[in-house]
Amino acid sequence: MGRKKAAEKGERDNLGVTVTRKEDFSKWYTEIVRKGGFKDQRTPIKGFDVIQPWGYALWERIQGAYDALLKEHGIQNCYFPMLIPESFIEKEREHFKGFEAETANVTEVGSEPLSEKLVIRPTSETIAYHMFTKWIRSHRDLPFKINQWCNIVRWDTKVTKPFIRDREFLWSEVHTAHASLEDGLRQIDDYAEINDRFHEQLAMAAMVLRRTEKDKFPGAEFSVAYDTLVQDGKVFQGPGGHFLGQNFSKPFGIKFTHDDGRKEYVWQTCLGMTTRQIGGLIMQHGDDKGAILPPAIAPVQAVIVPIIFKGKEKKVIDQAKKLKEKLCSLGVRALLDEREYSAGYKFNDWELKGVPLRLELGPKDLEKNEVTLVKRNDGKKSSLKLSGLAKIRGVLDSIQKEMLEKSRRNLEANTRDARGMKELKKSVEKGGFSRANWCGSGECEDTIKDQTGAGIRGSIYGKSEQTFGDCVCCGKKAESVVYIAKAY
Amino acid sequence: MGRKKAAEKGERDNLGVTVTRKEDFSKWYTEIVRKGGFKDQRTPIKGFDVIQPWGYALWERIQGAYDALLKEHGIQNCYFPMLIPESFIEKEREHFKGFEAETANVTEVGSEPLSEKLVIRPTSETIAYHMFTKWIRSHRDLPFKINQWCNIVRWDTKVTKPFIRDREFLWSEVHTAHASLEDGLRQIDDYAEINDRFHEQLAMAAMVLRRTEKDKFPGAEFSVAYDTLVQDGKVFQGPGGHFLGQNFSKPFGIKFTHDDGRKEYVWQTCLGMTTRQIGGLIMQHGDDKGAILPPAIAPVQAVIVPIIFKGKEKKVIDQAKKLKEKLCSLGVRALLDEREYSAGYKFNDWELKGVPLRLELGPKDLEKNEVTLVKRNDGKKSSLKLSGLAKIRGVLDSIQKEMLEKSRRNLEANTRDARGMKELKKSVEKGGFSRANWCGSGECEDTIKDQTGAGIRGSIYGKSEQTFGDCVCCGKKAESVVYIAKAY
Repeated sequence: MGRKKAAEKGERDNLGVTVTRKEDFSKWYTEIVRKGGFKDQRTPIKGFDVIQPWGYALWERIQGAYDALLKEHGIQNCYFPMLIPESFIEKEREHFKGFEAETANVTEVGSEPLSEKLVIRPTSETIAYHMFTKWIRSHRDLPFKINQWCNIVRWDTKVTKPFIRDREFLWSEVHTAHASLEDGLRQIDDYAEINDRFHEQLAMAAMVLRRTEKDKFPGAEFSVAYDTLVQDGKVFQGPGGHFLGQNFSKPFGIKFTHDDGRKEYVWQTCLGMTTRQIGGLIMQHGDDKGAILPPAIAPVQAVIVPIIFKGKEKKVIDQAKKLKEKLCSLGVRALLDEREYSAGYKFNDWELKGVPLRLELGPKDLEKNEVTLVKRNDGKKSSLKLSGLAKIRGVLDSIQKEMLEKSRRNLEANTRDARGMKELKKSVEKGGFSRANWCGSGECEDTIKDQTGAGIRGSIYGKSEQTFGDCVCCGKKAESVVYIAKAY
Repeated sequence: MGRKKAAEKGERDNLGVTVTRKEDFSKWYTEIVRKGGFKDQRTPIKGFDVIQPWGYALWERIQGAYDALLKEHGIQNCYFPMLIPESFIEKEREHFKGFEAETANVTEVGSEPLSEKLVIRPTSETIAYHMFTKWIRSHRDLPFKINQWCNIVRWDTKVTKPFIRDREFLWSEVHTAHASLEDGLRQIDDYAEINDRFHEQLAMAAMVLRRTEKDKFPGAEFSVAYDTLVQDGKVFQGPGGHFLGQNFSKPFGIKFTHDDGRKEYVWQTCLGMTTRQIGGLIMQHGDDKGAILPPAIAPVQAVIVPIIFKGKEKKVIDQAKKLKEKLCSLGVRALLDEREYSAGYKFNDWELKGVPLRLELGPKDLEKNEVTLVKRNDGKKSSLKLSGLAKIRGVLDSIQKEMLEKSRRNLEANTRDARGMKELKKSVEKGGFSRANWCGSGECEDTIKDQTGAGIRGSIYGKSEQTFGDCVCCGKKAESVVYIAKAY
């Protein structure tokens, strides 16, 4: 059915994306977010959007996957207050000044002014570590590992972008305390394991980068973040883990007693993963028709669209219901789309939403005791005997593998060495990661940013790469190999 | 081990509750909340507490149970912004004036004043229904049913009580829209089914009461709430469902088009369930040793405490690990307590936390190839052959049944008829529900409150009870049978 006819029938206006990724990547992205039912920005305050049912169902899957990984690693959930007194955050000035221009402040209740300004959490270190002083006494209380799922407000004054740059977002924040430096560092390795496995489920090939001094989390000793490459050649920053050393335990006074009675400050780490990940997923995998979600975290893995012809409705619908039951019993997250819309409209809608597998069932399929499969990631069609439905698990597994492979190839194909500023500028223009030697100075870091528009994202975490020349900027002896890219 | 010795060993100070329920019910409750690791109130702002890992694990179970019921009933999750412009809520003045003295208002970002005051949501009708006008067009979009899990701020100026009366709490809020009055009313029945099944899992016998006009949700046509009886004779209010009719759809302009092109305003309902439920659970089931959690929603259903004697440590621990594995494979949420504390300390700790079943495993048990079971709800001890562990599922089921039965008996035993004010006063003094005839006037409602300190909680929802006399207060003709009680 054509768009006009569909519109006449009162079908909603989400009939596909109006621009290609090449024409306008940013518009393409915003249209998918809106028309795919991920997020609605038609709210009264910019940057405070509604996560719609489809977007939220995806978040529940992401959250479930991450939460399971955290729990496997001995991290327990809890919940801290959302409001923090202004006086309270003075304890960690260095840390907090990274946020203070962006905080939303509560100054009154009803129409009564408050005696002290309260800040909506931009992150929860100050309140969490205040509590740590009450909970941690002995070495037996360590390691202490907690997480909270909550909302965060950071009032960015720049233009907002749904999921990618929101003023209110949802996240997981992990905070840990350890009895030794070594155990604290081991926690950063734990984060790497958690995030490696997480990115496999997202089918996103990631660079695990130790950020530069300028770019680390405020108050941290060092930061490690997951960078992935999206289709416009820019980098998307995913979860970040931070080693805090004793930088917070000293001002807060978080001490523990050793077995021999000796008192010492704890070593700490933190980790964050946010709803921004939804934006990363769409930008990473989507095509000109919409989002493409990896089966491991798609809220619906297989959607059944009945193809209805007059007189055969009942038979098709009955069979479609059986098909759905059977798939569910096989552990597939299946949905039967029985809405009063045309099949063409439904195809568009589920392509926008990114469901990995479409199952078409019409009278012709029934005659052959078959169902038609359409893979979302490459559009390939095939037929499957209704007696061999168990094979669908295998099809979903291949989609997951193909998506991860594609992401890996894309990352590899768009990471290139750059020697000297001329080569670096050219490479940055092409998009992706430029691999370069760096002397380690902040001046060169700034010059690179000024001259190329791209920033140093860091060096590979946990692996010391051999330099392959002198500093890309000043020509002096290089200290490390770094990855340079433009980022969201 | 005695308290002194335990304290010397550096064990934490949660060695049991210091008062009985009879001595001081309120103190008893607060101690369990704190010492059981449910909540910590040592935060900078009163009423903004920390939900600790054990309390949060319980919330995750409650949330999981409720969420599954909502999804089964076709309700989808989403997320609305936390901040709402003040101008925005003017649309439903009647509704909002119920909250305006209690709202926390954001008036500045960083140090810059905002042009318009923003309110932290005390509930989300205004923002949700603003979005409904964008999402609902045709009868095909109806019924429309969504839920959000989020934090809420209501700045109660009265004394706060952990979980029961917090200024920030977590909740589920369901909002639905329907194409007819009848379908809207059916939704209220759906809520009753959801909450009936929910209360079975909580092992709480509930009265499902339609509130009086004075007591209904601001802006609702009528409200139905779940009241349960706690051990001090007061009533605890659980989830509440509200029929909004067209009271919100008219001012907000939420219209839909019928098949024949006719436009009409939708009928609406909403429902709420909060972290308050944790407090209700503790007050309902707890005993002088601590909380008692029903197996259906206990984060840990069976805790294994190894009884260690010198020289036999390894054998006991090895067997305890096997026991844990076996229980997990049987679908029991089991935990092995390997902490470096004494067995006595562990017994106290898990009794405080309310784990339904304790399994003791020592050298003597091992000799007999047995494990000792201790039921938290009645303290009864028994032995079980290690070869017959599957029976533990049955033991957990009986605990669940026994707890629900006890709750039912308590509700029955503490509900009594009252004829005339003298009898009513006496009955209110005894605690529990007083069943009385009421003329339906607001004056009598106020008089009853003034003279007895107890309020009319409402009449049984979905059932018209035969009056058994004249109005308990004025003696005029009674309209309905109502339940009167003091409440939290």
